[in-house]
Amino acid sequence: MKGGVESDLLLARRLGIDSQHEAIAFVQRDCPACKSEGFSAHSRVLLQNGQAEIFATLHHVTGDLIGLNEIGLSEVAWQRLGLQEATRLRISHPAPLSSFALVRGKILGQRLNERGCDQIISDIVDGRYSDIQLTAFVTACSSHILDRDETTALTKAMVNTGNVLNWPGSVIADKHCVGGLPGNRTTPIVVAIAAAHGLTMPKTSSKAITSPAGTADTMNTITDVELSVDQMRNVLERVNACFVWGGSLNFSPADDKLIRIQKAIDLDSEGPLIASVLSKKVAAGATHLVIDIPVGPTAKVRSAEAADSLRAHFEEIADHFGITLSVQITDGTQPVGRGIGPALEARDVLRVLRNEDLAPPELRDRSCLLAGALLELTGKAQKGQGTQLARDTLLSGEANAHFEAICLAQGRLSDPPIAEHQRTISAPRNGRIANIDNRRLAKAAKLAGAPEDPAAGIDLHVYLGDIVRQGGGLFTLHTESPGELAYAVEYVVANPGIVEITAP
Amino acid sequence: MKGGVESDLLLARRLGIDSQHEAIAFVQRDCPACKSEGFSAHSRVLLQNGQAEIFATLHHVTGDLIGLNEIGLSEVAWQRLGLQEATRLRISHPAPLSSFALVRGKILGQRLNERGCDQIISDIVDGRYSDIQLTAFVTACSSHILDRDETTALTKAMVNTGNVLNWPGSVIADKHCVGGLPGNRTTPIVVAIAAAHGLTMPKTSSKAITSPAGTADTMNTITDVELSVDQMRNVLERVNACFVWGGSLNFSPADDKLIRIQKAIDLDSEGPLIASVLSKKVAAGATHLVIDIPVGPTAKVRSAEAADSLRAHFEEIADHFGITLSVQITDGTQPVGRGIGPALEARDVLRVLRNEDLAPPELRDRSCLLAGALLELTGKAQKGQGTQLARDTLLSGEANAHFEAICLAQGRLSDPPIAEHQRTISAPRNGRIANIDNRRLAKAAKLAGAPEDPAAGIDLHVYLGDIVRQGGGLFTLHTESPGELAYAVEYVVANPGIVEITAP
Repeated sequence: MKGGVESDLLLARRLGIDSQHEAIAFVQRDCPACKSEGFSAHSRVLLQNGQAEIFATLHHVTGDLIGLNEIGLSEVAWQRLGLQEATRLRISHPAPLSSFALVRGKILGQRLNERGCDQIISDIVDGRYSDIQLTAFVTACSSHILDRDETTALTKAMVNTGNVLNWPGSVIADKHCVGGLPGNRTTPIVVAIAAAHGLTMPKTSSKAITSPAGTADTMNTITDVELSVDQMRNVLERVNACFVWGGSLNFSPADDKLIRIQKAIDLDSEGPLIASVLSKKVAAGATHLVIDIPVGPTAKVRSAEAADSLRAHFEEIADHFGITLSVQITDGTQPVGRGIGPALEARDVLRVLRNEDLAPPELRDRSCLLAGALLELTGKAQKGQGTQLARDTLLSGEANAHFEAICLAQGRLSDPPIAEHQRTISAPRNGRIANIDNRRLAKAAKLAGAPEDPAAGIDLHVYLGDIVRQGGGLFTLHTESPGELAYAVEYVVANPGIVEITAP
Repeated sequence: MKGGVESDLLLARRLGIDSQHEAIAFVQRDCPACKSEGFSAHSRVLLQNGQAEIFATLHHVTGDLIGLNEIGLSEVAWQRLGLQEATRLRISHPAPLSSFALVRGKILGQRLNERGCDQIISDIVDGRYSDIQLTAFVTACSSHILDRDETTALTKAMVNTGNVLNWPGSVIADKHCVGGLPGNRTTPIVVAIAAAHGLTMPKTSSKAITSPAGTADTMNTITDVELSVDQMRNVLERVNACFVWGGSLNFSPADDKLIRIQKAIDLDSEGPLIASVLSKKVAAGATHLVIDIPVGPTAKVRSAEAADSLRAHFEEIADHFGITLSVQITDGTQPVGRGIGPALEARDVLRVLRNEDLAPPELRDRSCLLAGALLELTGKAQKGQGTQLARDTLLSGEANAHFEAICLAQGRLSDPPIAEHQRTISAPRNGRIANIDNRRLAKAAKLAGAPEDPAAGIDLHVYLGDIVRQGGGLFTLHTESPGELAYAVEYVVANPGIVEITAP
């Protein structure tokens, strides 16, 4: 631009605003650079500092928050530009986002092809889509359901825009749960059993986005989960398996952005869900995969029909990527373990591995079912005998031995912390447990502080069908501060239906 | 909430950030009120100050922008809460937005009924939808096209959430242009002709949202357009018609919010477009309506088929609301007047009304066509004779006399301002004008300063098919400052195809 240094360069200021994935820039409404370029509020703009360039959404500011020759940046804008200190930025109109024409076509019912998916996902990963544009894409993929070819193309595009790992050996085991069920922390147990049978299982897991705990949060209370790829290789060579937080490995980087929008509008549709799961598994190098789909009225998948359909589509797409798949449709009507929250779930995992009396039988059974499916899928067990073999591996202590070896190889084997503040919620009358609301239970655990406070969460004392007496404990809230305890108690008192009791 | 004053009340701070329709609140990531309620970044929150309550989207902040017990508010949040000074606000979880379940249903292909539209539109008007939620609604209405009943229900809901005006008499005339064509400023001329024939025409118009001028911007360079309903009544009693900015009359308040999202993703679909237009006409009390649909490759409607389909749907829905409709499908391949921008378009309007030699013949002809259709529709002219009657009314000076009377009744009859800085762009070679890009022409007019600077814009010197000589003027840029002139010149130099010249 000819206007020169005075008018089209603005001094960047870090505002510390967390605008999530969408970069936001704040300028005075009448700043010369913006008037001359004709930017209005919510214009998409291109910011450049010599080395880097990013797209951002412009917000106008009046008053003294931002000077006339300054540009305020949200945190993600600041970081994507790689700024260390106040720097002059050039602001201009970005070239038209040609991939969005394909999104517009999809909205109107056209199909996406491989090249189109590549362009869209690559622009999303590069931060070129605003939240509004991302929402249009996510919505269109639910309105005009992705067919097999589209789902495959989307998965491939999501794999290609991130890192892909390769491991020695022809069998790389993995498992995944299509979420929505609190306390369903089977992964560490399945990995331990698989490792005991010599399977290579470089397990990468996520931290919680909107749930009270992810597997990485849980395992982090026992061992170190932030490993580099080289560290992973080293651990695998020694003990066959590892538990690693996948966040720093940059698998399928579009996924987080899409998930946040999907959560904001509470919309899960099959195509994007399958692409989300399988893109990460392909990137992680998996060849043999067990998928757990819990079904229940307050789980993510709510009917047997939906689960069957999802299974069929998972199988089709996995086949395309050469992944040998076993889908297990399981009971999602209630939590699987007793604990909900990182440390409480870790405690249940350890109890099962150590064959303690207090080990939740449902967690043990579910873990053996899934581990058994994996043993059968990889030829380590005969058809129909996997579950029993998994159970034997647990009871013999072999699984626990391998679990401890993995943790030590990762640098640490700790006991999960115990919350300082606890309060037990009691049954208001005699009766039978008729219903447990997974969603509100998860909400209460988050109010208690999970997952940021690792010891926080909920310890459930009853299962569906149990007979309880008035005054008997239903669940205990665990928190790290009295304030959080007060809020969590207030929430569960205001929501007496979290655990429903009927006449026995 | 029991936490008390310390933890769940935050001191509001006005940040002056223009976040458009979406209210945004900024808090420290670890502010006690937010931790205890479990808010994460981008949570939707309820803010209350005793008198008012609003929904807002939460952004987390680190650093010193916002204090630990403060809450920063975007401008629309501050205004909706009716704050005058720093006030303590309560922040809490809003009740679930039940109407969004209907949007989710629409995304998946379910139909919207009348009650559903009422709930959705009412929540949108009350600011309960985030931009992400609005986008999901807009996208779904394009993916699963609204049928007649849905469009009717949406129109009705948009009418019901705003003001509705009633005028004496059984014939209330109106006209509307389905935009996208710069310089198509026929409205003032049509109104003047209608008024000359005794028609009641309380014309409300919009200011430009993303175009170089709206009718209200143009008329504001000649007379005062911000009239109250009582003032409108008074003007109508004296001179039959008026030119009023509709923005302060609160017709169909959902419309602006939906239009901004539609523009952000460049998505126009029939149902929402029809509901947008007709909801404002019903609210304005219209009984007889002429709609102009210009068709051309760079206009809003790009094919004759699309225009025919739109016409048929307009007729169906208008019929439901008892509006007598005449749709005119017109040539949208090039600008209609010569001027683009408020004052330049006003100049053309005055030239036509005054029968000056420099009056653009296309603007006069188009205005007579539309005015003629209106005269026929309202029984003031025989079928087939409206255009001629309109032309006679212009040539006789009657239309101009009524125009001046209306302006004077509204308080002022001024000459539009003339820009201080002008630069003519010349033909680079001999040839014939083969194409005019309406969109980039509009863009250049906006870079020149329109509509904020009323005198800014573009004066076009050629029409399609004209023969030009090298060095002859194609168009002149008008600006109010040299800086804007430089930028507009740079844009048109970088875009030589705005006016395309081929061998003669």
